[in-house]
Amino acid sequence: MFPGPGGAVLTSAPTDQETIVTTIPDIATLAGEAAAETSGTATARARSAVLETLIQRDPGRFRILTGDRPTGRLHLGHYFGTLHNRVRLQNLGVETFVIIADYQVLTDRDAAENLPEYVEDLVLDYLAIGVDPARSTIFAHSAVPALNQLLLPFLSLVSVAELSRNPTVKDEIAHSRQSSVSGLMFTYPAHQAADILFCKANLVPAGQDQLPHLELTRTVARRFNDRYGGATPVFPEPEVLLSNAPLLLGTDGVKMSKSRGNAVTLAADADETARLIRGAKTDSERHITYDPANRPEVSSLVLLAALCQGRTAQEVAAGIGSGGAAALKRTVTEAVNDHLAPIRARRAEYGRDRTYLRQILRDGNERANAVADATLTQVRSAMNSNY
Amino acid sequence: MFPGPGGAVLTSAPTDQETIVTTIPDIATLAGEAAAETSGTATARARSAVLETLIQRDPGRFRILTGDRPTGRLHLGHYFGTLHNRVRLQNLGVETFVIIADYQVLTDRDAAENLPEYVEDLVLDYLAIGVDPARSTIFAHSAVPALNQLLLPFLSLVSVAELSRNPTVKDEIAHSRQSSVSGLMFTYPAHQAADILFCKANLVPAGQDQLPHLELTRTVARRFNDRYGGATPVFPEPEVLLSNAPLLLGTDGVKMSKSRGNAVTLAADADETARLIRGAKTDSERHITYDPANRPEVSSLVLLAALCQGRTAQEVAAGIGSGGAAALKRTVTEAVNDHLAPIRARRAEYGRDRTYLRQILRDGNERANAVADATLTQVRSAMNSNY
Repeated sequence: MFPGPGGAVLTSAPTDQETIVTTIPDIATLAGEAAAETSGTATARARSAVLETLIQRDPGRFRILTGDRPTGRLHLGHYFGTLHNRVRLQNLGVETFVIIADYQVLTDRDAAENLPEYVEDLVLDYLAIGVDPARSTIFAHSAVPALNQLLLPFLSLVSVAELSRNPTVKDEIAHSRQSSVSGLMFTYPAHQAADILFCKANLVPAGQDQLPHLELTRTVARRFNDRYGGATPVFPEPEVLLSNAPLLLGTDGVKMSKSRGNAVTLAADADETARLIRGAKTDSERHITYDPANRPEVSSLVLLAALCQGRTAQEVAAGIGSGGAAALKRTVTEAVNDHLAPIRARRAEYGRDRTYLRQILRDGNERANAVADATLTQVRSAMNSNY
Repeated sequence: MFPGPGGAVLTSAPTDQETIVTTIPDIATLAGEAAAETSGTATARARSAVLETLIQRDPGRFRILTGDRPTGRLHLGHYFGTLHNRVRLQNLGVETFVIIADYQVLTDRDAAENLPEYVEDLVLDYLAIGVDPARSTIFAHSAVPALNQLLLPFLSLVSVAELSRNPTVKDEIAHSRQSSVSGLMFTYPAHQAADILFCKANLVPAGQDQLPHLELTRTVARRFNDRYGGATPVFPEPEVLLSNAPLLLGTDGVKMSKSRGNAVTLAADADETARLIRGAKTDSERHITYDPANRPEVSSLVLLAALCQGRTAQEVAAGIGSGGAAALKRTVTEAVNDHLAPIRARRAEYGRDRTYLRQILRDGNERANAVADATLTQVRSAMNSNY
């Protein structure tokens, strides 16, 4: 009855909802705000380069908040879009909080019905790709009441106009009749502020579509500090670390999406992977080139092999030459299966013990609660309400 | 910068904000919805009579949620408007939760600056009038994270249109530019649902202005049960117990309000009370009658004496006869001081030990947290998210 939140939350990875939402032009874009946005993106990109240097130099200065919706198994789009970068940052020594955004799938019937399984699968995928529970806190949004309470003071700091102006909310309104947008969707930018600020994350890896969201989180942090912070600010103003997520298409040539069955999941086995790639859409030109603008399907396959092999797309294309689609698909299948082999092996191993997965989540929830409780105590003190 | 919530929350007692808000005609009324509302009120009134009988017969079936904003000392308007009835219900054996709505005064500078003091004063006033901490749970809204988390699932069950349609929200929008209404104000009907449903209150004593709020709380409870409840509903659909709050004017002839200094507080002493009533607005007609339509100020004083003495207003007026304003004021002063004497004595006694007041609140917070945690666990189970 009420549409759920569209758009990815804290990740730039493609999701099913995003696919739907982004087909409609953004109101801001139509209104000519595109130029400003592009300039904002350029600034963010320059700053991200600086941040990368700072991370390399002193990773202990940073705390990251990232996460996913529990909508089923993760696929290569998620992996190269965000997960890979997340593990890289963790391994550099950046403390990481990973939120499983279970309140964002309330209106997704499939996810809602399989929630415990999907949540566990997400934990399993995380462990498989190298998220280390000793260094990264994996937790469920609905398990941390003190985080959720932050929504109330934060909502007092933003206006209805600011909430409506958020692109994801605007998209949702453009899609539905405004009247049928749910209160949860409408207040979504403030939820995101709570998700990020509860652990005082100062860095959020995200795609450029997430810049307006993060801007509101920064606004909330700034206003809270101004109004209640006194001499010592309670919250950092988190910065965006823009990720250069490669554009990988599904095997049918459109965006990867679970519901289309066009994506290789991390959990798939080698045969299933081969079968899926064998059926991928290509074109009739035998000579393989990397030309995303004119040959999107072929180029996406070339790029996928390149990402898996740590080579450039041009090198991969040159290596196949006139071998045609069949040779390309063999190369891609081998590259994907080789790259995923250790991940799949770990996944199979961890998957044998669901109790362990639940324990990881419980430990993460406990740690997130301790952090959220400490932040809420500080917030209540700052607000003069610690009675 | 962002206007706070207008209108009383869980009480029909007059508040400063209400005074401001209700001077502007309601959009619904202008649009001709007045007739429907009146019929709704008649139904609610009939149902309240039935509920009164049920309460007398079996008070243990009921649990009440009520409360106040911590905006300073309570006065006679609060007392005869809601507090008196609250204590009556408690003493009949109805379990009572009393919320101190501290997140609703964030934009009230005076309240925000004196929050701990105002909250303690509220506890003190409660104890003085006979709220018994052994039977009534007094707690602060901001101290119960699991209560606040309920806001998220509840917001997913209501649309932006339903939130906008709420009279308090509409009034606020009519007052400010819509754009400047805060997100907290806008989502206020859903907060109220969380406040009431966290303890599964099935009864809310309220004035008729609160009927639309309660209707949304009932809607939230029903939708939650329909979607997640399975065979056993998680939430009751709380009913309104309409109170016949007498209309007491301030000494200047307008609504009682702290900021106007036109109200006798429970904390005032006998001399202060006498001084305030001596300065009350009356009229030049020597013969005292009870005629609220034509002699509002005099009638309000007559009514006040009647309420204090447990007589009818007509009896009081007849007793004064042609004694004029001076005799009326002497009668009222004596009646008020006599009635409040034991309350003031208790208030003075409890007021000597602020540590005790804080302990009462802490005990109440603890109990409210236990209840909220249990409800949230049940909610998470119902939503299939208890991992």
